[in-house]
Amino acid sequence: MLHADDDQAREKFGSVLKHKNMSEILMDHKLAALGDAYVNFIYSMALSRRTGSPQGAKVQSRVLAEALKRANLRELLPARTDRHKQADGAEALLVYAWIKGLMPLEDAVSILYQHEKPIEAFYSLILATKKRLHL
Amino acid sequence: MLHADDDQAREKFGSVLKHKNMSEILMDHKLAALGDAYVNFIYSMALSRRTGSPQGAKVQSRVLAEALKRANLRELLPARTDRHKQADGAEALLVYAWIKGLMPLEDAVSILYQHEKPIEAFYSLILATKKRLHL
Repeated sequence: MLHADDDQAREKFGSVLKHKNMSEILMDHKLAALGDAYVNFIYSMALSRRTGSPQGAKVQSRVLAEALKRANLRELLPARTDRHKQADGAEALLVYAWIKGLMPLEDAVSILYQHEKPIEAFYSLILATKKRLHL
Repeated sequence: MLHADDDQAREKFGSVLKHKNMSEILMDHKLAALGDAYVNFIYSMALSRRTGSPQGAKVQSRVLAEALKRANLRELLPARTDRHKQADGAEALLVYAWIKGLMPLEDAVSILYQHEKPIEAFYSLILATKKRLHL
């Protein structure tokens, strides 16, 4: 079953987002608030699929901050940006790509699913997202 | 853009879920843990769309428990079930329907989006979900 409605409404909201470059996305704290809910959900889904049993999980700031750094995106944030705000950057980026239709939820879950270690999973997802963004 | 992958992988995981009836879904605490992440995400997305600005939110147990009661599903849980476990029931039900492909994420967001008050939004979504489940 595929639903045309899915993407229509998401794209409608996506037109609200008018970011000029990657730094602007990474520093959008409103987007990070939505991204926090998104990231916990896709990670919970990936974990559930890995273990074959439903579960919920919260992704730690430490994990997202480290993944962002490995993907060479931490350098786009001001030098004094703390770990929590670095994690916000990763959350904002990931949900931005989903809203814009560049990284479907299912693709994101599948990428996370392939890695046992959370940092590697998010590094891989951030890298794939970066490539699809062309910024 | 529609992605066939989306539903293939979700349905693959969905085959793991073998619940016989509504009570069994409502009392599945593992499913509720995944459902918690799902519910917060769809509600954050609906709020974002309503306000035209991205935001994150956690749905209160009180809201989900009341919505479940209005949809006449609270009676399927044991009498002494506390409010938190009632909310778990709503979370389990909503994510179950998504995993099974009966309530696409976008449909869920659209239903929530139509109501200003959270209890009415979730009552409406639970009712629509109940109808699609045929249990």
